[in-house]
Amino acid sequence: MTVSAAASASASRIISREDVVARMPPLAHRELVLALAGEAEARLGARLLPSEVPADVAWFGNAAGDGVGSVDVRRGAPGSSIAFMLEAWFHRELPGGDGAIDITALIVNLNGATDAPHLLMEFIQGGPSSLVVLLDLLPRVDLPLHPSYIEKYYAATGLDARGHRRFAERVPQARRYVSPLLFIRSMFSPTAIVADVQCGEGGAAALDGIVRGQLAGVAMDVLGVWLEHCAGGGGAGSGTSETGMEMEAEERERMVARDRMVGVTEVELNLAANLPRMFDAGVADRVVAEIRKAFMGS
Amino acid sequence: MTVSAAASASASRIISREDVVARMPPLAHRELVLALAGEAEARLGARLLPSEVPADVAWFGNAAGDGVGSVDVRRGAPGSSIAFMLEAWFHRELPGGDGAIDITALIVNLNGATDAPHLLMEFIQGGPSSLVVLLDLLPRVDLPLHPSYIEKYYAATGLDARGHRRFAERVPQARRYVSPLLFIRSMFSPTAIVADVQCGEGGAAALDGIVRGQLAGVAMDVLGVWLEHCAGGGGAGSGTSETGMEMEAEERERMVARDRMVGVTEVELNLAANLPRMFDAGVADRVVAEIRKAFMGS
Repeated sequence: MTVSAAASASASRIISREDVVARMPPLAHRELVLALAGEAEARLGARLLPSEVPADVAWFGNAAGDGVGSVDVRRGAPGSSIAFMLEAWFHRELPGGDGAIDITALIVNLNGATDAPHLLMEFIQGGPSSLVVLLDLLPRVDLPLHPSYIEKYYAATGLDARGHRRFAERVPQARRYVSPLLFIRSMFSPTAIVADVQCGEGGAAALDGIVRGQLAGVAMDVLGVWLEHCAGGGGAGSGTSETGMEMEAEERERMVARDRMVGVTEVELNLAANLPRMFDAGVADRVVAEIRKAFMGS
Repeated sequence: MTVSAAASASASRIISREDVVARMPPLAHRELVLALAGEAEARLGARLLPSEVPADVAWFGNAAGDGVGSVDVRRGAPGSSIAFMLEAWFHRELPGGDGAIDITALIVNLNGATDAPHLLMEFIQGGPSSLVVLLDLLPRVDLPLHPSYIEKYYAATGLDARGHRRFAERVPQARRYVSPLLFIRSMFSPTAIVADVQCGEGGAAALDGIVRGQLAGVAMDVLGVWLEHCAGGGGAGSGTSETGMEMEAEERERMVARDRMVGVTEVELNLAANLPRMFDAGVADRVVAEIRKAFMGS
């Protein structure tokens, strides 16, 4: 990315993500997402259009002062394979001074120019020593029916060894996270890192170390695989993936319809159900509407 | 099932499954499959045609005497929703008296008359204290695209609580089994029991207890859910599921094509790759060919 592109990228946000993070209590996982989103933005460069969210979505809070958040959406430039990049930063103090819940997500969805997987990185921190980690390249086809898709994006990229297995081996505190939502469980690829890291009573420092150490390494590596093999390796502005050329028009339409359907279901089951528990009704509605718009492509 | 149907069911096998089990070293998981297959056969009754495998597939062994096995395939009766029921019993002693590997599977695939999941139950025992358990109702559609399918067959049936979660809670020695084959991992439903039960040095009695206790209970319950909600609850001969009526012809064709594609890939990656390591080449080829025939529907 050129210096001017970097400047315009920063200038396009009403509030920078550094400022978003600075306005929330310090948390290792937020710093990690800061680094991940910065890296993605730098590598995607001019393939991302300026931010398009209104000021009251770029930064929002509850009337009672017990919750703040930020959502940013940048669409892909015309001709690129990027549909949108979505960042979500949520912080909500729990009633009675009983800690806080912090959710941070970085999502980059691709469009019909490629069949390559979307990027999903989500961190759900329910306390100082407990973190749910979801890192995946989300498949865009029915995997058992497409062994060559599995081979191309998941086996040949070494993703399993570099992400999933490495994380499980290096972080003994991590157990498989089992979402109560069967739909969410069904979205992930077989190499997804879907982990519940529990460091126990007084384990805040241990969790902090894991996030800054092993988790940061694995997450950056998964992002690197996605940037290199899925987002299109070309320079800024070159978003046309070689894989896009292989698809039939009908197949492409079916995939894009699947993207929309899956995205909308995800928003409804996940965010539309949970944000009202963290934020005032008006705030939650506004934020969910903005996220829904990104997934609907309108 | 009537007495005569039961008699003809037994009579249809060249060698009964009780005899197969009796000819192999005693093993708790084999007794469990004996009970599961017996229950499935009794409930499916006349919807299963007589066995169709040749004598040298119904029972086979290696020239050196270090491996024996049995495969049985019964097709569904015309008008039923059963494609086939497949049983596989493999026992192979390891070189140098270093234990044995025992694989036992019960598979019932449905046909285009219904979109209900197939039944898969597989047990891979690598030693007296170590057992991989795969129990699932295998989805026949691209799940993230069909939330109502997830709701109908996996959520509304209580399968998650009755199978997956109960097993994980009651068997602390069980960890998630991660197949080295990404394709195999991608086949399973989000409620699958995909577990590696390791009871450690001298843990044979502990494993035995788990298999006869917690595992038997959960496996019978999963089979019960499948028999009641997927195989069609009607009496013998009534195999037409109410769900079959909702499908469009095109959708049905796509699903049946998916079944074949997934089944064939599974046979190639799993059995065709592994059976030659357990049995003499001629034996393995013959057995794989018979299993392939079942999945191809020819």
